[in-house]
Amino acid sequence: MRAEIISVGTELLLGQIVDTNATFLAQVLAELGIDLYFKTTVGDNWARIQQVTKEALSRSDLLLFTGGLGPTEDDLTKEAVADLLGLELVREESVEAHIRALFEQRRRPLVESVLKQALIPRGAKIIPNRWGTAPGLIIEHGEKILILLPGVPREMKGMVREGVIPYLHSRGFTGKEVIRSRILRIAGAGEALVEAKLAGLLSRANPTIAFLAHRGEVHVRITAKGNPEEVAAMLEAAEQEVRGRLGELVFGIDEESLEEVVGRLLRGRRLTLGVVESCTGGLLSHRLTNVPGSSEYLVGAAVPYTKRAKMQLGRLKEALLREAGEVSPEVSVAMAREARALLGSDLGLSVTGVAGPQRVGELPVGTVYIALAAPEGEEVEEHRFGEEPGREGIKWLASQAALNLLRLYLLRGLNGRRS
Amino acid sequence: MRAEIISVGTELLLGQIVDTNATFLAQVLAELGIDLYFKTTVGDNWARIQQVTKEALSRSDLLLFTGGLGPTEDDLTKEAVADLLGLELVREESVEAHIRALFEQRRRPLVESVLKQALIPRGAKIIPNRWGTAPGLIIEHGEKILILLPGVPREMKGMVREGVIPYLHSRGFTGKEVIRSRILRIAGAGEALVEAKLAGLLSRANPTIAFLAHRGEVHVRITAKGNPEEVAAMLEAAEQEVRGRLGELVFGIDEESLEEVVGRLLRGRRLTLGVVESCTGGLLSHRLTNVPGSSEYLVGAAVPYTKRAKMQLGRLKEALLREAGEVSPEVSVAMAREARALLGSDLGLSVTGVAGPQRVGELPVGTVYIALAAPEGEEVEEHRFGEEPGREGIKWLASQAALNLLRLYLLRGLNGRRS
Repeated sequence: MRAEIISVGTELLLGQIVDTNATFLAQVLAELGIDLYFKTTVGDNWARIQQVTKEALSRSDLLLFTGGLGPTEDDLTKEAVADLLGLELVREESVEAHIRALFEQRRRPLVESVLKQALIPRGAKIIPNRWGTAPGLIIEHGEKILILLPGVPREMKGMVREGVIPYLHSRGFTGKEVIRSRILRIAGAGEALVEAKLAGLLSRANPTIAFLAHRGEVHVRITAKGNPEEVAAMLEAAEQEVRGRLGELVFGIDEESLEEVVGRLLRGRRLTLGVVESCTGGLLSHRLTNVPGSSEYLVGAAVPYTKRAKMQLGRLKEALLREAGEVSPEVSVAMAREARALLGSDLGLSVTGVAGPQRVGELPVGTVYIALAAPEGEEVEEHRFGEEPGREGIKWLASQAALNLLRLYLLRGLNGRRS
Repeated sequence: MRAEIISVGTELLLGQIVDTNATFLAQVLAELGIDLYFKTTVGDNWARIQQVTKEALSRSDLLLFTGGLGPTEDDLTKEAVADLLGLELVREESVEAHIRALFEQRRRPLVESVLKQALIPRGAKIIPNRWGTAPGLIIEHGEKILILLPGVPREMKGMVREGVIPYLHSRGFTGKEVIRSRILRIAGAGEALVEAKLAGLLSRANPTIAFLAHRGEVHVRITAKGNPEEVAAMLEAAEQEVRGRLGELVFGIDEESLEEVVGRLLRGRRLTLGVVESCTGGLLSHRLTNVPGSSEYLVGAAVPYTKRAKMQLGRLKEALLREAGEVSPEVSVAMAREARALLGSDLGLSVTGVAGPQRVGELPVGTVYIALAAPEGEEVEEHRFGEEPGREGIKWLASQAALNLLRLYLLRGLNGRRS
């Protein structure tokens, strides 16, 4: 069975509101094992609603509509679809009674136009609306199924749970066949390199593997279809294969962020961390403190954003800044050492760099030095992000690189030596 | 001219990422007075990309594609569209040279597959990509125009501004009738209060006024339609009316963030700022440093995330923490004073609070104290955000309140007294 989502609403088409309904419906379909191939957004226009419906009927079996069921002049979905299918609209008593009762309860005057929501295409099944006025509708048209739902998320979701899912179960879509995904998150390599390492795993039909590039991360999405047990086994096997080829490039799965993974490793080893970050300006510390319980391992941070602050708050020597340069590997290492002293922590992590828009001396925008200080020594890394990411992009990429350096230290020791 | 947007990407179809590109393109089309009638989302599938392109060609004159131009196997848009139109792909020297140079500059190994992005449909105009690798493409096919853009927002937007808009202008779409909006941004009041203050302004047809609630802000969107001069006058007049009723609740317009506005005020008054933030964990400093040139006024920050760090890095007395409590107005004021001393700045701003998940003593999650220290004295505010916003939500709302406190001080002095 092939499904298609049709979102009706001029404000959706013009991008003035975000289509969260389609996202929700896509997840429901995946859970039921129903393939979703197209999603169309169209405005509140009779002719165009009919046009996209006609096309959808020619290529899909299950059509899910959201929006356009309300009481205003702009609400046309039901009328346009019924007209296309040749179904007359009939007044449904139970729905009219429900609407009248709702307005009485809210002590609002009933405007007659509201009652157009009680007109139902002949033969349609009604999904009651316990949260508002317009009922949902299920129309069986030959071999096709058309389901019309309100655009209000709360109403739509309630109807999906109470009406649509039971209906699709009764039609044989019991979720015995599901489509599930697992995402492996990678730091320290770009999309092209990851794809090269996974060559040969990519041309399968089930499970499939797809790449998503994010700033400072690559996501490998494994998608499997089958019954829940088969799917779990396929996802597990594919994950192991991918990890076998990518090793430590994989830092987490699904929603796990670098900062969560680092937090788990620090907690597990009972180590504390101090941060001295200039170019990331607080972002590194902000990310670390987004993780609940982070005060167990993050003692604190200093953000010496100017040269003066590097000397005063950061306690760096003026001679060092002058000789090595404010942005340099030497200053980065000194900042990481100071982090341990200033915060009284086991480990120190530092970031110094050129976020732009100006260069610093000979160093182009996007040059960043990251250092880690541990009891047994220090290590430092240089990155060249270029100016394309922009100021916020450079800050983000630098924070990713810093968290990844710390993660790899916690996994395999300083400069890769096991400690 | 009828336009249609085609967003290519399985992750978009399945709702795993939000289609912000389509929103942006819809606004660009509105500016040019070009009608947008359909928006279709389709997965990374050759046959289905061709199917939706064929339909679009039958009903629209201008097709705008985003996504699927990258280097991986899943990137199919260009190849599928070229094949449908019967255009061969030709290697373009300038694009290949650009890609090679970019990889050299970033010191990354060039994986050969990346060079597929240098293949161009014969006859297509190239829109250079100054921010990444894949060029944009403009294909004139009989009376139709097909424009292919990358999915990476930064790259897509740059190409639209530098390539697509000039091209559409040259084809005669100069935007004589436009639809434009202006957003007034409000901090310090919720949606219901703002709506009450604007009662009476709301029922107009042109310009229209709409409310958008965001975390810690309310946006009032004024939308006007007409020729550019009329629209500019309507927006100006409506803005003045709204400001007349809301006064200092309005902190900026359109894209201006609180941190940008604060930065402008600090720079104008030649004042420097130091921050000591515990519960916001670096977010306040991160936001301030997102603004280019912020090192002119932000000296730096300290993030004492634990009690020990409040004493060691923050130099607070243990007696004070014990008697007043770690999270208290007294500690907040002490932190703000210390910010001035630690960073050597004119002003100090502090945040201490309960981000959760645990209460602190009697204080429920979401209790936050914000203080400002100036040469002439200090002020402190209490906020109760509750636990509904969650950890990240409480951090954000606290940073908004801190920036707003600083903004109001810079506008009208300590505790509202002009200084």
